[in-house]
Amino acid sequence: MKIGKQTIKLENSPCIFATSSIVGPKEMQGPLAQYFDANIKDVFFDEKTFEKAESKMLESCINNLLVKAGITQQDVDVIFSGDLLNQCISSCFAIRSFDVPFLGLYGACSTFCEGLILSSLLIESKAVKQVVASASSHFCSAERQFRMPLEHGNQKSPTAQATVTASGAALVTDKSVADNGIHITHVTPGKIIDLGVKDMSNMGAAMAPAAFSTISNHLTDTGRTIDYYDYIITGDLGIHGSDMLNELFKNEGIDISQKHKDCGVLIYDEENQDVNSGGSGCGCIASVFSSFWFNELKAKNVNRILLIATGALMSPISSSQGESIPGIAHAVAIEREV
Amino acid sequence: MKIGKQTIKLENSPCIFATSSIVGPKEMQGPLAQYFDANIKDVFFDEKTFEKAESKMLESCINNLLVKAGITQQDVDVIFSGDLLNQCISSCFAIRSFDVPFLGLYGACSTFCEGLILSSLLIESKAVKQVVASASSHFCSAERQFRMPLEHGNQKSPTAQATVTASGAALVTDKSVADNGIHITHVTPGKIIDLGVKDMSNMGAAMAPAAFSTISNHLTDTGRTIDYYDYIITGDLGIHGSDMLNELFKNEGIDISQKHKDCGVLIYDEENQDVNSGGSGCGCIASVFSSFWFNELKAKNVNRILLIATGALMSPISSSQGESIPGIAHAVAIEREV
Repeated sequence: MKIGKQTIKLENSPCIFATSSIVGPKEMQGPLAQYFDANIKDVFFDEKTFEKAESKMLESCINNLLVKAGITQQDVDVIFSGDLLNQCISSCFAIRSFDVPFLGLYGACSTFCEGLILSSLLIESKAVKQVVASASSHFCSAERQFRMPLEHGNQKSPTAQATVTASGAALVTDKSVADNGIHITHVTPGKIIDLGVKDMSNMGAAMAPAAFSTISNHLTDTGRTIDYYDYIITGDLGIHGSDMLNELFKNEGIDISQKHKDCGVLIYDEENQDVNSGGSGCGCIASVFSSFWFNELKAKNVNRILLIATGALMSPISSSQGESIPGIAHAVAIEREV
Repeated sequence: MKIGKQTIKLENSPCIFATSSIVGPKEMQGPLAQYFDANIKDVFFDEKTFEKAESKMLESCINNLLVKAGITQQDVDVIFSGDLLNQCISSCFAIRSFDVPFLGLYGACSTFCEGLILSSLLIESKAVKQVVASASSHFCSAERQFRMPLEHGNQKSPTAQATVTASGAALVTDKSVADNGIHITHVTPGKIIDLGVKDMSNMGAAMAPAAFSTISNHLTDTGRTIDYYDYIITGDLGIHGSDMLNELFKNEGIDISQKHKDCGVLIYDEENQDVNSGGSGCGCIASVFSSFWFNELKAKNVNRILLIATGALMSPISSSQGESIPGIAHAVAIEREV
């Protein structure tokens, strides 16, 4: 049921029954290493190209999800997936090995929450029972597509974020089939917000206004305040984008600094890893939610979170044609039954 | 409700209340010219680049849809859209001008039916009432991205299809809000089928097995035969891919040649327009359904169609890395109340 202007309350609050994550070597040097299910020792993952490595990583992540959930691919009704590569090839080639209907998404780094929103709405429709939402990114395939060949060794701007090498996947279920008490209760799909930021090295600035819009509208629509949630978790604004989001709320008289966490900030060690403004990429929030945060929910350390995936909807071509960067943010309220 | 292995029966059979189409100059020289709502005289559509022209075409198509349906953007709950460009920029920049939640899709030329499937399932969930499903493509932006710069003037293979310059959009509604008797009764989201075709100039061959799989499974799941439908409408297998689909059914003892129509074949005049195997691109089935076929349904010339959008999920990078072309096909059963 739609409440307010932009939010949907899920009458049957589907369950996030299981998650799976896999990350690259750099992410394993970061502070969340112990939470990831799997990792690849080498960015090529025994493949000949970065693109094939990314695809294999996502395929392995979904296979591991099925194992963790104790199901087979015959039990899955639909797989949603998306990534950053042109024509979403890491998803298309990864899902090729599954005998399951596939619905491809493009939402840049907002893809994982877009998948969770659609998965929960499909289950709400009673049409399906078990849906996978997944996303991936790979530092090396993203660098050469969006920026420079790695061999170029170019300097990064301090506001630039590093694309995370990671995949994450979640199994969303109808509670009648499988229920662990962790539910999606509300979803707020985002509108495109573009305040004219053109700097491709500062995508946090392009996405922060979209995150602000979606979070604000979610709170208005639900009649909730920031205090309702244990954490407001974005992915991925990075260090600079997170500062901007805090500032935008401060202008409204709301202090979110204690409640707000950003997956792009959490995944790396700011002091000891050379990542400038933090992590980004579809795989960042996908893997950090599917490891650390899902673990916190299961361990009952956290009861209510608002998960917001933010995307910068530009391409190298749109930027070279002088366009600004449209931002989007999709929010999902995840609550543990207490 | 899921019936069989891959099909969902929509208990509340959402309505396709209105459609809108816009095409380029070449499509206006074809046999369907009289059915399109709008056309652009020049491929640049008063913009400086092909990409911006494609975006503007899609934006204008959705605006016209709202006018035709007699609603404003405030009445729309969600817009689905996708296209062929890297990072789906024609959709992202087109939808930027709407104050409506946006969920981006990537399904190559299967995008329009992917959007219809998700629109109808969202309405089935009772979460929303009015959803737009849209898609676009542009010959010039696609040529330079996937093939050669236009200035190169390269020869085309006889099996190659020409990307259509067109956008199409449909408004899917909950029947309680708006109903014209034209309903989506069943949807069959497709699985990825890859039989190893590697020729980027023969995408019909890569997609025909996916179309065969989805149509066959749809018929098995619903207990229907080809005879149930007035037409089985694919988009876009082209001339060669259509022959293959016919052949695949013939091997099963089923003659679909009288029932089957392909939007890529319909949109151009094979004799007098130089398009080799016919049209393709997300905008082809989107615009041909949204004009000719929707008109036929409204005029009561046609009562039951199975609409199947097929996509080739490769990229120039995956092909240059030696990969084959994964195909997908999403089917939507559209039936007029009689």
